[in-house]
Amino acid sequence: MHRKLQPPLILVNFKTYLEATGKQAIKLAKEAEKVHQETKISIGVCPQPADIAPIANAVEIPVFSQHIDPIKPGGHTGHVLAESVKQSGAMGTLINHSEKQLKLSDIDEAVKLAREKELVSCVCANNPSISAAVATLQPDIIAVEPPELIGTGIPVSKAKPEVVTDTVKLVRKVNPEVVILCGAGITRGEDVAAALKLDMQGVLVASGIVKAKNPYSVMLEFANAAKKQ
Amino acid sequence: MHRKLQPPLILVNFKTYLEATGKQAIKLAKEAEKVHQETKISIGVCPQPADIAPIANAVEIPVFSQHIDPIKPGGHTGHVLAESVKQSGAMGTLINHSEKQLKLSDIDEAVKLAREKELVSCVCANNPSISAAVATLQPDIIAVEPPELIGTGIPVSKAKPEVVTDTVKLVRKVNPEVVILCGAGITRGEDVAAALKLDMQGVLVASGIVKAKNPYSVMLEFANAAKKQ
Amino acid sequence: MHRKLQPPLILVNFKTYLEATGKQAIKLAKEAEKVHQETKISIGVCPQPADIAPIANAVEIPVFSQHIDPIKPGGHTGHVLAESVKQSGAMGTLINHSEKQLKLSDIDEAVKLAREKELVSCVCANNPSISAAVATLQPDIIAVEPPELIGTGIPVSKAKPEVVTDTVKLVRKVNPEVVILCGAGITRGEDVAAALKLDMQGVLVASGIVKAKNPYSVMLEFANAAKKQ
Amino acid sequence: MHRKLQPPLILVNFKTYLEATGKQAIKLAKEAEKVHQETKISIGVCPQPADIAPIANAVEIPVFSQHIDPIKPGGHTGHVLAESVKQSGAMGTLINHSEKQLKLSDIDEAVKLAREKELVSCVCANNPSISAAVATLQPDIIAVEPPELIGTGIPVSKAKPEVVTDTVKLVRKVNPEVVILCGAGITRGEDVAAALKLDMQGVLVASGIVKAKNPYSVMLEFANAAKKQ
Repeated sequence: MHRKLQPPLILVNFKTYLEATGKQAIKLAKEAEKVHQETKISIGVCPQPADIAPIANAVEIPVFSQHIDPIKPGGHTGHVLAESVKQSGAMGTLINHSEKQLKLSDIDEAVKLAREKELVSCVCANNPSISAAVATLQPDIIAVEPPELIGTGIPVSKAKPEVVTDTVKLVRKVNPEVVILCGAGITRGEDVAAALKLDMQGVLVASGIVKAKNPYSVMLEFANAAKKQ
Repeated sequence: MHRKLQPPLILVNFKTYLEATGKQAIKLAKEAEKVHQETKISIGVCPQPADIAPIANAVEIPVFSQHIDPIKPGGHTGHVLAESVKQSGAMGTLINHSEKQLKLSDIDEAVKLAREKELVSCVCANNPSISAAVATLQPDIIAVEPPELIGTGIPVSKAKPEVVTDTVKLVRKVNPEVVILCGAGITRGEDVAAALKLDMQGVLVASGIVKAKNPYSVMLEFANAAKKQ
Repeated sequence: MHRKLQPPLILVNFKTYLEATGKQAIKLAKEAEKVHQETKISIGVCPQPADIAPIANAVEIPVFSQHIDPIKPGGHTGHVLAESVKQSGAMGTLINHSEKQLKLSDIDEAVKLAREKELVSCVCANNPSISAAVATLQPDIIAVEPPELIGTGIPVSKAKPEVVTDTVKLVRKVNPEVVILCGAGITRGEDVAAALKLDMQGVLVASGIVKAKNPYSVMLEFANAAKKQ
Repeated sequence: MHRKLQPPLILVNFKTYLEATGKQAIKLAKEAEKVHQETKISIGVCPQPADIAPIANAVEIPVFSQHIDPIKPGGHTGHVLAESVKQSGAMGTLINHSEKQLKLSDIDEAVKLAREKELVSCVCANNPSISAAVATLQPDIIAVEPPELIGTGIPVSKAKPEVVTDTVKLVRKVNPEVVILCGAGITRGEDVAAALKLDMQGVLVASGIVKAKNPYSVMLEFANAAKKQ
């Protein structure tokens, strides 16, 4: 794994929130960078495709695309090309987020494309059995997020700790290398700490930071909690 | 219609061609701008989302997104938000390109979103009956493209002139205002001229320009042919 | 229109309710037939594909498929072939129900296929503008159903009468022939009467009948209300 | 595994071929049953949903649905409900055929639904890595089929024997129990024999039988080849 992604890792998904679009996206990425500089904890940001280039120009922390399509260059109007996000400055990409789920063969193809184009792949999964399936495809990172908890403020490590522990157990059977993150409902430093205690190597977080009154201070709280583990 | 889109109009779709990605995309957009400056013919470019901002910063001709999703700001990881492409500098957007087709209700929603966000909407259609259906939704522009001719170099105005004439006839019955373009297989100035003679108000073109040895000279040929009509 | 579909028309969508699956589906279809025999009002049923043949063998009222795919015979595992539902005894088919929405070009293709195979087509639409778009494709029947009212028990003719009146107005501009139904939230005879008063030619109804304690008596109430108009 | 599915197993996918629709489907299923009676080799058939009930009534060999949707009973117009195909007489179902591919989370859900409803699940996969991913979801059967060979008459065991051997190797690492079939391009008895020699436990076949001049004799040839292994 790239040293800037060394666990514990905090990945901030900007989704299509207005608070994380355009100029606001650049501002948020700079705050994330500041937290990284202060704590040395790895933090990456996942903006919309139109914001990748300006953010990659503005900060030195890792930038991830939110999605790539399983396509090669050519006649694919409206699709997201791996080469395009790479040239714009992305270091990696989410694949199969629960809000942008793919057919299994497209996940397989997208992971292979990411590897070929030297993009770090983070494949999302809804539950432990899907996490294990995904792990066999050899992505760099897996993020397990029960979709029913996304945006609720109820952290998976608290509401469904067995999702976290079962994911670790099933994934490690088939893939000892992959970095495992968890997400959904994470809003406080103690949620991050709880996840790491259950052998997670970081978190994928969105509204907990993007919709916070003070995103910088929440990211700092997350990073400090991660540091103590 | 915005004066920069005054027919006859040439819309260049960059698709996901490597020749129109990243720095190459900016170069191509600058050549399009040069042709516009020399001929005064309206020319717009449709780059990938990650290239919208750098192109909109580099040129003064209209920039279109290749797609928007029918979503409002929020939790929609991996989707294309109207506000995002607008903030990046897009003046309009393609909707329902034959390589990124949408459910009918999503076309309806995307056209309404574009209108609300003041993005010019160009909805693509495969044939005359679909063009008429689309025209009832009141987009700004329609582009009819028989998918079987896309990328063939056989122009629709020659291979299937009835597609062009039937489209005009059916669309005008339900919508006297919408600007009508045709596409697919257009590679020479005479193809542009033939389309305009059949009452088209411009062309949507991709590989004919992007994959040309000298895109600038092909665009110039197109613009000059349009000028003579 | 086939005489068995002469408006006013009541189309009962069985969806995938257990109360309308297998033997229960046949029982419900027989009750619908009884109501037709008693009132002479046209009633059709829309069972799941596996129930089309047994129902078509058991009753003489019209049977509709809930969906067809825009495909010709061939290698299309898991798809619904027009010829298959026709051979099983279907007289028509729903297309683009809000729970099974299609790309616009697929609706166009499915309507053409239905016409070619002599299946009566009933295309569903969410709102007046989509209804007008659909009407240009020349289906036999249109059913407008605001998805947010489906299954609520709040009838569209009451909650959103303008959806009904706007649909009639917009559709008649582009198609004077098509039969127009409305649906969503219809549970009582007076809802049917209200729809017909607003120039609807019938209703598409599902849970209001399928989930009723006594579906037979609700269908009878509907038919009697339709008769009085 | 049910004794009627005891390997070696021949699964015949009827797809949406006219030669395997309606009465023709019943005729083909009866020929498959005859071959089973003569050879004792397990043979199952996968008809379209509208043909499940008449076939299940006519023969005693296993009948599979070509697809189920990952849904529970309710408002899912146009979807394929596990309970519906079960009540119609299906013993199992294909899931994720390359012509009807599903999102990964939907495969996971469909396998669980099949298990819950006591339907034998046969999940299809395009290549060895996808086969391994699928195997972690614990279906009863996996069928690996390189889509580029489907319908070509070039058997996978000959054109790409490494697909077969890699599938066995990767799948057995994560699942020692699942029955493994291969498909695509199988038209002769020797193709079946070759597959079994490479540790496949049977074949999934479509056009090789359905489009044959004499499907009965081809099935007999397949069954006899399977018997000798």
